[in-house]
Amino acid sequence: MITNLQKKYFLDLLGDENAYFDEAHRVAYCYDATKKRYMPDGVLFPRNEEDVSKILKYCNENKIIIIPRGAGSGFTGGALAHEGGIILAFEKHMNKILEIDMENMVAVVQPGCININLQKEAGKVGLFYPPDPASENYSTIGGNVSENAGGMRAAKYGITKDFVMALRAVLPNGDIIRCGKRTIKDVAGYNTAGILIASEGTLAVITEITLKLIAKPKFKKTAMGVFKSVDDAMRAVYKTMAAGVTPVAMEFLDNLSIRAVENKFNKGLPKEAGAILIADVDGNLEVLLDNDLKVINEVFSKNGCIDFKIAKNEEQSADLWFARRNCSQAITCYGSLKLNEDITVPRSKLPELLSKIYEISKKYDLTIPCFGHTGDGNVHTNVMVNKDNEDEVKRGYAAIEEIFKVTIELGGTLSGEHGIGLSKAPYMKLAFSNAEMELFRTIKKAFDPNNILNPNKMGL
Amino acid sequence: MITNLQKKYFLDLLGDENAYFDEAHRVAYCYDATKKRYMPDGVLFPRNEEDVSKILKYCNENKIIIIPRGAGSGFTGGALAHEGGIILAFEKHMNKILEIDMENMVAVVQPGCININLQKEAGKVGLFYPPDPASENYSTIGGNVSENAGGMRAAKYGITKDFVMALRAVLPNGDIIRCGKRTIKDVAGYNTAGILIASEGTLAVITEITLKLIAKPKFKKTAMGVFKSVDDAMRAVYKTMAAGVTPVAMEFLDNLSIRAVENKFNKGLPKEAGAILIADVDGNLEVLLDNDLKVINEVFSKNGCIDFKIAKNEEQSADLWFARRNCSQAITCYGSLKLNEDITVPRSKLPELLSKIYEISKKYDLTIPCFGHTGDGNVHTNVMVNKDNEDEVKRGYAAIEEIFKVTIELGGTLSGEHGIGLSKAPYMKLAFSNAEMELFRTIKKAFDPNNILNPNKMGL
Repeated sequence: MITNLQKKYFLDLLGDENAYFDEAHRVAYCYDATKKRYMPDGVLFPRNEEDVSKILKYCNENKIIIIPRGAGSGFTGGALAHEGGIILAFEKHMNKILEIDMENMVAVVQPGCININLQKEAGKVGLFYPPDPASENYSTIGGNVSENAGGMRAAKYGITKDFVMALRAVLPNGDIIRCGKRTIKDVAGYNTAGILIASEGTLAVITEITLKLIAKPKFKKTAMGVFKSVDDAMRAVYKTMAAGVTPVAMEFLDNLSIRAVENKFNKGLPKEAGAILIADVDGNLEVLLDNDLKVINEVFSKNGCIDFKIAKNEEQSADLWFARRNCSQAITCYGSLKLNEDITVPRSKLPELLSKIYEISKKYDLTIPCFGHTGDGNVHTNVMVNKDNEDEVKRGYAAIEEIFKVTIELGGTLSGEHGIGLSKAPYMKLAFSNAEMELFRTIKKAFDPNNILNPNKMGL
Repeated sequence: MITNLQKKYFLDLLGDENAYFDEAHRVAYCYDATKKRYMPDGVLFPRNEEDVSKILKYCNENKIIIIPRGAGSGFTGGALAHEGGIILAFEKHMNKILEIDMENMVAVVQPGCININLQKEAGKVGLFYPPDPASENYSTIGGNVSENAGGMRAAKYGITKDFVMALRAVLPNGDIIRCGKRTIKDVAGYNTAGILIASEGTLAVITEITLKLIAKPKFKKTAMGVFKSVDDAMRAVYKTMAAGVTPVAMEFLDNLSIRAVENKFNKGLPKEAGAILIADVDGNLEVLLDNDLKVINEVFSKNGCIDFKIAKNEEQSADLWFARRNCSQAITCYGSLKLNEDITVPRSKLPELLSKIYEISKKYDLTIPCFGHTGDGNVHTNVMVNKDNEDEVKRGYAAIEEIFKVTIELGGTLSGEHGIGLSKAPYMKLAFSNAEMELFRTIKKAFDPNNILNPNKMGL
């Protein structure tokens, strides 16, 4: 609990328009995309890095828990105040694009900057920021960096960490640090940025982010392949990459996902297909894209593709993407509660992963539609249950644990995009040895000896 | 100093063919590319990860300094036993390519694997490992990861850290950890690999490296542009990138470097030119390369290029590259001691950087030929002095310090490729605040509380 004296410190520092301890504000910041709720003790809107530094110094001295928060769109509870504490929200002031440096192809943004705003501004000057998490319309770059967000374009362009060149951050003791430079190469000192990325706001508060931009490719084309079996489709994914083509995205829907979309929207999708793959290719010359699509068609055909379409224009492209864009919503027909995981395996293990998931589905008598970013081995696995059926929910969680075990056995990871937060904390022991967990705790303690910054997340 | 009892431990563990304490071995491992010499107390050749774990555990308990070493080709003394201690050398046993996984486009290697061997083996199956430090023929992947080595191809493909997917490593206490996965996405737990890369062997001993490979581009072409002034050339570099073309490499030689090569080799180089730029482009379609070269030609022409050549075949390409490949050796005509730095600035600051370097050259009355990887802002700055002229050497070091200051002012870094080690340790205070240095020391202490692992490097 926070005392009146402590409240006064924050009100004096930030003004009463930037520090709130009333119920309305606390409720407004008590949730995230997990739909779990934990009431914080207050909400602060820092105006600048100096505010952040003073807040952290004070919280550190007074052992007040502080939780940095972007848009609260996370799927694992990383921004939840599950033990109380103060929410540090960047959306009000520290949400700007500070600079788009065309000469060096670099953007500098504040943590509260919304992903899509950066994509749009960069696009206006012919530049491109590829990371596109599904939450791109509302999630913040600060959150994206803290969770190391991925997205559909990761297959070709990589994920958030591949675009972070430099960070400014405030340590729990209030010290301001910079890490990295506006240069491709920088090997002076420890790669502190490397450890802050994906640290889920547990090591430092990021106050400024310098991102690499690339030249916007002039052309993009979309193709869709229909496969008899999901096994065929999964094999076609990694065979395409190994044939030297790197699609921007290579997404899949399994039969359950296809049927859910078709039943809801009647788009003429092949309801008997084992899976469909949707691929985008891009580049600066149309002939290059046509060549890529030719190779994709060849590889698909050799691997059980029964129908292959290429979109002739943007409208047709949007049509091909319709199923993928709407399947997350459509599959809610299978249950009122979606236990949604974002496991990732080496691409060649996709056929085996899917086959194991369907075995688990049978074993627990549950519907588990799968779709997602097969181009990078990332499968959104949705264990669908009826939230009022206690037994089904229990079986759902047992199925999830088994899916995690299979994923780890196949050399995969608990999370490709969403992070660990609270939701996946119980499963960390499946993925990491005692020595590895101990090292994580050592790192946490080195940065945050008083454990004030987003404590007890990530299973630490 | 190491005791006889301690020697016996290592001999019993590894056998007398893998543990040496005689003068011949100690001398053989007392140097690196800095030409400085520090005698170690012994040299161990671990056979496997278990040996490394036992050695570190024993050294930690007995406070014995241990220095991991690749090829000893580093330019900053990172592998030198400057306070004695035991050299841990991977070249004898732990030097293998363990796997090239074509389906996932991944290689798994031991730390002592020589860079070029990986490039060659990957090439045999149509895959490509881009990082190509100048030392590629002898430097090891373990060393490359520890220093986060770059190379000529960084402009397009990035540096070592961009290819590391996973590591196995041994902590100073002997604990074996894994970090990362054979997946593009993995956000479970702290990004420990991120902090081990570029840590110069001070945090853990890397025992296995999983690297991303890419499909080998089918075509490569080379062009050269001759510029009246170095200022024009430097502007052409970043204008080319901003025009949407990303050459594999974009290298430069200034007038002093051109003249040195021409005087030595008589290749018909333009001795009056302010600078030349040499660029490689690659891709899977010749038309794409031709398009890139057209854009490069246009941008160069608009920025003071007076002669532009495209190589018609591999022989002509080698001819265009001759000057760049031989300039490091040729510039020794300007002095018997080369104070060689690898400063890096944001690309748009290259013109200003070069102009400041020439001012410094005049101020200290020294010859400072420059060449290098302009495509990523990395300039090899060579302060040439006569090693027997004490005053000139002193002026040389003063010039270096001033060059570092200018580099930092321009938003650049002390080191783009070579690391800090011993040589650049005195300059760390120019680049990092007290808070940043303190954080580095905190990280070091968290991993290595007894300070046994490559101590006192990086200015810590």
